[in-house]
Amino acid sequence: MSAISNSVSLDRAAVERIVRDIVLSRGAAPQIGKAPPEAPNLVVSISARHCHLTDEHVETLFGSGRKLTPMKDLYQDGFYAAEETVMVVGPRRRMLPAVRVLGPTRPYTQVELAFTDAISLGLELPVRMSGNVKGTPGCVLVGPAGVVELKEGVIRAERHVHMNFEHAAHYGVKNGGRMNLRIVSPCPTIFEDLVVRADATSKLEVHLDTDEGNAADLDHATKVELFIRG
Amino acid sequence: MSAISNSVSLDRAAVERIVRDIVLSRGAAPQIGKAPPEAPNLVVSISARHCHLTDEHVETLFGSGRKLTPMKDLYQDGFYAAEETVMVVGPRRRMLPAVRVLGPTRPYTQVELAFTDAISLGLELPVRMSGNVKGTPGCVLVGPAGVVELKEGVIRAERHVHMNFEHAAHYGVKNGGRMNLRIVSPCPTIFEDLVVRADATSKLEVHLDTDEGNAADLDHATKVELFIRG
Repeated sequence: MSAISNSVSLDRAAVERIVRDIVLSRGAAPQIGKAPPEAPNLVVSISARHCHLTDEHVETLFGSGRKLTPMKDLYQDGFYAAEETVMVVGPRRRMLPAVRVLGPTRPYTQVELAFTDAISLGLELPVRMSGNVKGTPGCVLVGPAGVVELKEGVIRAERHVHMNFEHAAHYGVKNGGRMNLRIVSPCPTIFEDLVVRADATSKLEVHLDTDEGNAADLDHATKVELFIRG
Repeated sequence: MSAISNSVSLDRAAVERIVRDIVLSRGAAPQIGKAPPEAPNLVVSISARHCHLTDEHVETLFGSGRKLTPMKDLYQDGFYAAEETVMVVGPRRRMLPAVRVLGPTRPYTQVELAFTDAISLGLELPVRMSGNVKGTPGCVLVGPAGVVELKEGVIRAERHVHMNFEHAAHYGVKNGGRMNLRIVSPCPTIFEDLVVRADATSKLEVHLDTDEGNAADLDHATKVELFIRG
């Protein structure tokens, strides 16, 4: 049966899903006698497993002088899924054959996996905000031109919501605060304690990972709603 | 890189996880002046991908006269993970190399996958209660002694809670009713609308799949709680 392999198909699935977004109105009911408050349009995106690379690691993995090649824009302005993928090798040579690189490059290299991915690699991951990688597991990245041995930097990204300061004011939250996300679907779910990441320019967007998106059947959601715990 | 393969390790992980249960008290606070009502002990179990087979299919897949070999008892009395595994082949020859068989045998053959598994196979699954397989996708099962071409029977199991009639009375629910499950963990989550499956003899146990267990980080849960929507 060795001719039957799922490595290529897993890769294709990852590509198809890296930019999978669900856009649903918040479904605010119209009020009689006054105009309803304008609810910001909420996008819930699933981030499939991916990595961020430094300029130096792009050159190590893909060749001297190489830059990332944008393939598809992400919802947040200026960010993209790159053509490039890397093999992520975990303990005991378990591996994921093609993990998408997101651009632009960053001052640090970081791999973001769902727990399902991490378990298949034999890694026990901490749940961290992006960039907070001190003491996290490492891995080996293999590209067509070279190898990077990462001492730390593999995380499960903590569920979070990007927004601008106007959105934050609308919801009555601040940067670093917490909100809950209700997903109405065939598998209805409330994800609690999403971290609020508010700045001047971000679009309103929740980032979940594939475990979370699949648990809640986000693909068949009829309503998504952000709320503060009462 | 063909010497590096994750197929064996995925199998091992599935074996380790098929019987992964989280047992946590409901955390009822003691009350002064009277004994607290006795809260039933709640077990939340993660069912990794698995299949149920008919007697006939056991013989087709593993050999004439063969019976399932119990490997590990499950929490519900009389049920077990078997030594036997099958390869599940989906459309376009994508496959999962070793899906655990659960015993005892049943009047119908059924494969239960998480959405993450199904996506890797290229299958879009309906969410169904066990046994309700009419119109669901099929697959090919490959065992050491033969092959079964299943016309239907691949589902994502709907999240549910087993209990006896005393538990149902305690919670004020009936067979077929709905309850919510709160998981307090580093990734706190409420799964809504679990189906209640009440009978005379079942132990109190929630069944989630691996996507749900991983989304909620059940392994690091400090409290699990069943409740009816207020």
